[in-house]
This record gives sequence, structure tokens and C-alpha cells, in this order.
Amino acid sequence: MKLLRYGATGQEKPGLIDPEGRIRDLSGVVADIGPAELSPAGLARLAAIDPASLPLVEGAVRYGPCVAGTRQFVAIGLNYADHAAESNLPIPSEPVVFQKWVSCIQGPDDPVTIPRDSLKTDWEVELGVVIGTRASYVDEAGALAHVAGYCVINDVSERHWQQERGATWDKGKGFPTFGPIGPWMVTADEVGDPQDLAMWLEVNGKRVQDGNTRTMIFTVAQIVSYCSQFMVLEPGDVITTGTPPGVGLGQKPEPWFLKPGDVVELGIEKLGRQRQEFVAWKPAA
Amino acid sequence: MKLLRYGATGQEKPGLIDPEGRIRDLSGVVADIGPAELSPAGLARLAAIDPASLPLVEGAVRYGPCVAGTRQFVAIGLNYADHAAESNLPIPSEPVVFQKWVSCIQGPDDPVTIPRDSLKTDWEVELGVVIGTRASYVDEAGALAHVAGYCVINDVSERHWQQERGATWDKGKGFPTFGPIGPWMVTADEVGDPQDLAMWLEVNGKRVQDGNTRTMIFTVAQIVSYCSQFMVLEPGDVITTGTPPGVGLGQKPEPWFLKPGDVVELGIEKLGRQRQEFVAWKPAA
Repeated sequence: MKLLRYGATGQEKPGLIDPEGRIRDLSGVVADIGPAELSPAGLARLAAIDPASLPLVEGAVRYGPCVAGTRQFVAIGLNYADHAAESNLPIPSEPVVFQKWVSCIQGPDDPVTIPRDSLKTDWEVELGVVIGTRASYVDEAGALAHVAGYCVINDVSERHWQQERGATWDKGKGFPTFGPIGPWMVTADEVGDPQDLAMWLEVNGKRVQDGNTRTMIFTVAQIVSYCSQFMVLEPGDVITTGTPPGVGLGQKPEPWFLKPGDVVELGIEKLGRQRQEFVAWKPAA
Repeated sequence: MKLLRYGATGQEKPGLIDPEGRIRDLSGVVADIGPAELSPAGLARLAAIDPASLPLVEGAVRYGPCVAGTRQFVAIGLNYADHAAESNLPIPSEPVVFQKWVSCIQGPDDPVTIPRDSLKTDWEVELGVVIGTRASYVDEAGALAHVAGYCVINDVSERHWQQERGATWDKGKGFPTFGPIGPWMVTADEVGDPQDLAMWLEVNGKRVQDGNTRTMIFTVAQIVSYCSQFMVLEPGDVITTGTPPGVGLGQKPEPWFLKPGDVVELGIEKLGRQRQEFVAWKPAA
């Protein structure tokens, strides 16, 4: 099942993708795709619906972030060995964990604003994990039972603020618009093995990232279990699980970064694709 | 004005403290003390009420976290020069910023659970800043206009997970129950200068922290302005602004940490006090 939220920012309605790839409106069934709907019971209720019985959504729509009510946006760093190497950082012995500010979350195709005075705005295609049930001190074997589904995330990053402005990464990871999530959350049953998904990212049509979740250092199950040792993962929380090689910081012979007008497209097998135009920061009107 | 939330966990009602120090029930006026109530208009509406016209809350009550709907729990590290020294870390040239997981937020007097297998559970009395209006790219001169009020926070920390489990601090800062906030949010007008507040913390009656916000390296105005350069601060967000010397990690001749049965009491001038019993972790029933 592919669940989504569509419509204007802040006014998104819940929907699902039918077998023909069209959007069906779920707003007569549930108020949103949020923590309550992501529980096993909530998902079972939606799965029992015949998509053909739901109103068809015609025409072009904006996709919102595919999940509402995210309170914790967890991020894993350096989770692909080749990406750690291109960043000139050692392969971590346990997951590197940081947070993206939840105020950065936006739809998958919304424009991304290059921050005021940004020096190094960069891209990262990542597998997003959506939590369906509360997880505290869960072991690796039981971890995936807490996952409602998966989605595409661009973990947009400002490297100057991430790496050169003090001890922690959080400053460079959550500028406004830096968290495109979607277009859909695909339920875990439909995805199958999360460690065998091809992923890619292009800048202005040039392929720069080309990877597969099978080369993760720490698997989704390991990450969920690990995080649950020091925090409570709650329904609606999202974990973005690290990026394969090919970010701007790792380009040869010289790193290069995004500028206004650049278009980034990215996708993950079974999970859909995103497209963002990067635009210059402007003061609020 | 002192605003608070009282009652059982998850069922807190809004209230305020009247001139005689008693709790008055605000649930007939507002649903909660959350983002809407923290705006200048929301606070003005509450300030216009005669406390004597509100129902008196009799008897002992539990205090909840004084603010509801916090989506971002920002934390500043090493913001007192003497504390940086006791931590054997350099004085930062700009604020050290990390996040506490919002799932750690709890009432000011609720028991704190020492995490399973914890080695180094520690305390930190801190001035909490509650955001009242959205702040993005605000300058220092305008920053305090975005602050609704102030509160006491114990930035409970597990030093092993904070410092010895990889690159970022976030792992050691947001275990469940590690974020006592309250008892009240005191509005900014009543607090006056946030850089002249005495603060203290005792473990089992022994005074271990004794400081004043005047020795902060970065002021509240500087912190709010700084954070607004890389994130959007939203109404209900909370910033905890760092701790003065005297944490367990800095004790001489040897560091010492909290164990089950220890009682921590802490307070800040004008903002009230907290009391937590530290208890051993137990598996959920």
C-alpha cells in the first residue's frame, strides 16, 4: 500500500495510490496519515478498503510530506562505507546519530531554499523509515515490527554549517525546506527486504549517486534497535538512514555544491521519486 | 504571569499561579498552554483575566511540563566558561547546539529513570527559553521579542552515551524522562533581564551547582538569533541554554554520578524549583 498526503501546504488530505497508479482520496475514511493511522490496526483498516470505492483525485496535485505528526526526525550519518571514505571520515564502529529539525520537513517536489549566505548546499538520497509503533529497548530481531513503511528522503545538507561551525552536525541539516519526504510511504509488507533497494540521484540530469541499500554499514533493523536504546521512537517518527557515495562534498577533482536554478531528482526502487528546484533565499514579503 | 499544566500525565489541564501562590484552573478559558496560547495575543488574553475569577485548584497536584506541543527541544552546550573547563573542553567560539529528543519531556517532579546499563547519569540545571512567535533569521536586537517566557530545566545527561558512543551528543541527552520542564513558564515581562538569575542544584541535599545566568558565554538573545540562522524556531519550541559548573562529570577529586534513590532538587530565581527522585530502569509490565 502506498499512502500519501496531497494538496496545499498545511491543508494536505490523506490518499493512497490505486493499482493503476492514480491517487484515491482517503479523507472520507481518515483525517490524515499520522501516528494513529500508522499503527498495525490503522494500516490494516486502510488495507481492507477497496481502492476503487474511493473518490479518484483528478489532475495534477502537490504532494505533501507523506506522513503527518512527525515529532522526531532521526538521522544516521556515514552509513555507507564508500560515503564515509569520500567524506574523509573513518567508518563508524556504531551508528552516528543526529537530528534534523522537524521544521525542515516539506513535500518531495517543493522547491528547496538555499540558505542565506550558504556556502555548501549539498544533496543526499536516503531511505526513510517511518515508525508505526512505539519502540523502546527493542532488539534487532524485533525491530522491523515497529516499522510502518519506507519512503524517499533527500537529506539536504549545508556542509559549512554541518562541519565548520562547531561540534555537532545538527546546525547544517535542518534549514527550512531541507527535509523533503515522500512522495509516498510504502508499507513494509509491500517493500519486502529494505536491504535490497536501488537508489539514485541526479543534478541537472547528471547522475551523481547510484547506490543500493545493501551496502549500508548498519541495517534498518540494527538502526531501529540501536536508537531505541537511548530514546523512545514514537509512531510517526522518521529515521533517515544515510547516503551512498556521490554527494557534492565528495566530487572529484573538486567538491561542488548547489546553486539557484539547479534541479535535483532522486528516487529509490519501489518508493517513487522526488524533484526539487533549488532557489535563492529571499526575505519574507 | 506564571503558567503551568497540572494533572495526570497526558491529561494535564492549563492553569496559572495567582498572587497568593495558588493554582487557578484555566481550562474554562483555553484548552492548553501550547503554541496558540504562547503568542503575544494569546498571552495578552490570559493576562487580562482576574485570577480571582478562576476556579481555585485545591490540594496537591502533579505538575506536567509547563508547555505543550513542543516540537523542537534545542540545547546549547558548554555555555558557561567554568563548565567548559570542568569538562576539559575548550570555550566555544560560537554556540554548541544539539537536540534533546522531545520524547524525553516530562513534568518537573516526575521520577527520572536511570537508563538500563547506564554508567554515568548526570544533572544540569539550566535556564529554559520558551518560544512564543516564529523566528527565522532574526537579529540579536530583535531576538527577545520572540520569547514567551522562561522555565527551569534539568538537562539530564548520560555522559557515556554523550561522549563515548560516537560523534554527536544527542545519544546521551534524550533518554526517556531526561527532560523535566517546569513547574511554570514565567512570562518574559515578569522575569525581566534573563541574564541575572541565580540558579542552583542539590543532590541529596548537598549543593553541587551554584551559578548565575550572568556568566553565560552566549546570552539568550544571542542564542535565539544564532539558532534562527539555521532553523525555524516555532511557538512552543524550548531552548535549554547550558549549565554552570558543578555537574557530576566535573566533581573533584573524582567524577560521580547518580544512582537509584538519589534525589535531585534544583531551581532558578523567579522560576521555581524541581525535585526528582532517580529510579532504576524496569522493563514495562
